[in-house]
Amino acid sequence: MLTHEKYQQRNWKPIIKEFEAILGKKGVIQRREELITYECDGLASYRQRPDLAVLPKTTEQVAEVVKICNKYSVPFLARGSGTGLSGGALPTQGCVLIVTSLMRQILKVDLDNQRVMVQPGVINNWVTQTVSGAGFYYAPDPSSQIICSIGGNVAENSGGVHCLKYGVTTNHVLGLKVVTANGDIVDLGGQIPEMPGYDLTGIFVGSEGTLGIATEITLRILKSAESICVLLADFTSVEAAGAAVSDIISAGIIPGGMEMMDNMSINAVEDVTAMNCYPRDAVAILLVEIDGLEVEVKANKQRVIDICKQNGARNITSANDPETRLKLWKGRKAAFAAAGHLSPDYYVQDGVIPRTQLPYVLQEIEALSEKYGYKIANVFHAGDGNLHPLILFDNSIPGELEKVEEVGGEILKLCVKVGGSISGEHGIGADKKCYMPDMFSPADLETMQWVKQVFNSKGLANPEKIFPTPRTCGEAARAVSEKKFEKVERF
Amino acid sequence: MLTHEKYQQRNWKPIIKEFEAILGKKGVIQRREELITYECDGLASYRQRPDLAVLPKTTEQVAEVVKICNKYSVPFLARGSGTGLSGGALPTQGCVLIVTSLMRQILKVDLDNQRVMVQPGVINNWVTQTVSGAGFYYAPDPSSQIICSIGGNVAENSGGVHCLKYGVTTNHVLGLKVVTANGDIVDLGGQIPEMPGYDLTGIFVGSEGTLGIATEITLRILKSAESICVLLADFTSVEAAGAAVSDIISAGIIPGGMEMMDNMSINAVEDVTAMNCYPRDAVAILLVEIDGLEVEVKANKQRVIDICKQNGARNITSANDPETRLKLWKGRKAAFAAAGHLSPDYYVQDGVIPRTQLPYVLQEIEALSEKYGYKIANVFHAGDGNLHPLILFDNSIPGELEKVEEVGGEILKLCVKVGGSISGEHGIGADKKCYMPDMFSPADLETMQWVKQVFNSKGLANPEKIFPTPRTCGEAARAVSEKKFEKVERF
Repeated sequence: MLTHEKYQQRNWKPIIKEFEAILGKKGVIQRREELITYECDGLASYRQRPDLAVLPKTTEQVAEVVKICNKYSVPFLARGSGTGLSGGALPTQGCVLIVTSLMRQILKVDLDNQRVMVQPGVINNWVTQTVSGAGFYYAPDPSSQIICSIGGNVAENSGGVHCLKYGVTTNHVLGLKVVTANGDIVDLGGQIPEMPGYDLTGIFVGSEGTLGIATEITLRILKSAESICVLLADFTSVEAAGAAVSDIISAGIIPGGMEMMDNMSINAVEDVTAMNCYPRDAVAILLVEIDGLEVEVKANKQRVIDICKQNGARNITSANDPETRLKLWKGRKAAFAAAGHLSPDYYVQDGVIPRTQLPYVLQEIEALSEKYGYKIANVFHAGDGNLHPLILFDNSIPGELEKVEEVGGEILKLCVKVGGSISGEHGIGADKKCYMPDMFSPADLETMQWVKQVFNSKGLANPEKIFPTPRTCGEAARAVSEKKFEKVERF
Repeated sequence: MLTHEKYQQRNWKPIIKEFEAILGKKGVIQRREELITYECDGLASYRQRPDLAVLPKTTEQVAEVVKICNKYSVPFLARGSGTGLSGGALPTQGCVLIVTSLMRQILKVDLDNQRVMVQPGVINNWVTQTVSGAGFYYAPDPSSQIICSIGGNVAENSGGVHCLKYGVTTNHVLGLKVVTANGDIVDLGGQIPEMPGYDLTGIFVGSEGTLGIATEITLRILKSAESICVLLADFTSVEAAGAAVSDIISAGIIPGGMEMMDNMSINAVEDVTAMNCYPRDAVAILLVEIDGLEVEVKANKQRVIDICKQNGARNITSANDPETRLKLWKGRKAAFAAAGHLSPDYYVQDGVIPRTQLPYVLQEIEALSEKYGYKIANVFHAGDGNLHPLILFDNSIPGELEKVEEVGGEILKLCVKVGGSISGEHGIGADKKCYMPDMFSPADLETMQWVKQVFNSKGLANPEKIFPTPRTCGEAARAVSEKKFEKVERF
């Protein structure tokens, strides 16, 4: 790798000329003011302007771009819609950003075999829109689904509300056409679910662009359920809501989605949306979606109502019609944005715990909130134990971001302590790489790096992501404070 | 790698001494007559006696064994129950076989979080038996489930009747403790479904022992369904049965299992089992299992009956009680064994096709049967397009095996031609590696080999499996005919 000084000295002219020969002048963005758009993703507390951004339209163009990057030893990474929350698409110093916003074609729709092939820039929601008329949908639904790209979903192995029952992105990707880090084009997986040989599709999904760039993605689509019902249950304690979640799963019911929001989140959403549909005095609410045959939904709805009542739910309302269902979900999907109205800034954490540890972990988060003096709102995929604590703070006060990151780190360590994970669906990216050693032994991490080494031997594909360099969080914190000027420059 | 001559010259004495120091004298099998047991797996047409077999009991012992193999450059592979059908556990010349039959402990049962941790020698069926009292079960159910091992299931990514709805082995493995090819112990995945970092669990499952040996396996268990119903529908044409399968899936019904058997298989099973429960004059039968809530099963049962009738089913019988259900499935599970009574030998193929291609592919298989003059019985997981044609032949006639393998190869090429796969659930092993280039481009195969290279750099872990060496089927066929003496020696 080139050092910082060498990047500064790099003569971009011949490189730009080569890019323009492939992509045309419009396909290469080099003006500083235009590059500002790309200096961060959804994790806006980390920023780094790329030296160039390019806009390919085809697999072959991506491959050519990557080959040129290899020729000149330029680091590169792909960016979809830039909605990622772990800094997976954060540019590295001196890098070329490969933006997929012109790769938005739906290449093939095969309803008979329930699959759709798309380019990586296609927006998540478009897939469902394309096939919904025929009674199908694409299951993984991140909150950002109206804007996030399928390529980004693949990179981060994105989840969503409906992943409890139907699985995250990796469970819905059948095959990939990939440009490897050295510019080769290879096909991973295929058009059917189980392919022989090594499951390279599985390893690529969630690898955050460190193994290459997906340029064609074959997705599995599902048949829409005959009937869907959403229940809103209102509890006077988080423990009671958590116990209801455990009991629902123990009863063998797998809801389409099962989300919990605490009082602070409920009020934030009501403040912002003025929907008047969440009970402002509830300590916690559960949103439970039940889908299936009409008879099945009817039966499971009654079972869920009974379980919620047994666990002390005050009120339970239900919605069967699409409009009211959408309204009930709208608040949940708006929860992150609403938190932005509670305080100048917020930091969203993403951790996983075994469901049985829910009451204990929520108590400990409350204790951390008191210890550090930050309000923490809780919104989470309760069914699969995927927490999203939102730590509220004011980034204009110097030093606050670092303290909030420390709280976030404490929450992750707590997740690991109870047998969980440092990431549920947002990925590791730049944000969490220093916590990887809390979760994996040096031998485990080394094994992953072996794989990185073979796909990305020069280290040019999305460097400085996933794996901890420097090695410890302490070192990382020091490195962060030295780089502070970069991180806060746009706040 | 050592050449054949060098294997012959190998001095096993110091190696045996080192093995015995770890495993005791009883843990090392070196007598030729005892080693005969291990010279093939379920693919009995390929045989090679291992030079040694060892019986470790713990992860640490496996790691020590592998380290000794590395020290002396001895190839090694693991063997579970030896029921695999693609020769994945076929010994290589001069190898040490690591037999897991003393690794049969169920290490941990965690019903709250629906997971069970086992050693690799644990029999598939034991997992369900362990948790069934509490209302849980382990979903992947190969026909050999009362004898096959979980370690073997992991190596081959085994499927089964119930994998249509619930997925194959890889969908049920949460984490693995693995001894890598150089003897390191690493943890892949964990105790929760989605872990950050590269999905090494996914790549390990189905890698047929070429990346290392799993020594602790954490499995996901599912809640048993409230109600189960099995339907037997009787058709006068294979096309009609195939159309019913397509219509059931198109209606959004995902049966627990959906199997088809043709007339030859039906009669073979009836001859052998004398159960008198399959209609001997049916051209094809469908067995459809519907599970879920009682109301759901009732509703879906009626829908399946209606669809089968619309497609011309003559009779439909159903079973709700466990005893009759088991009887209906027993015939299907005995189908392979029953084929053994139709002719002196049979060769079972395993290919996948898109469901929509079923009628065309069955016609083509019929044409191959006529062209080559072999009877072919068809038994298959119809719901997921996983064919199991059974080619009947007499191996005592010289040259027949090679011709039958050619027919099998033609069937695989047909599967690939219609967009399917050369293996559904039996793996590639030694048997199908020469067909890998029909399915994958040289670049795709090279990408897989990169991964093999990092995990298994010396090539000692289960050599000569999955990847085609020599490169083409023609070359392989020539190599096979040169090795004929080895293959037929025990027929």
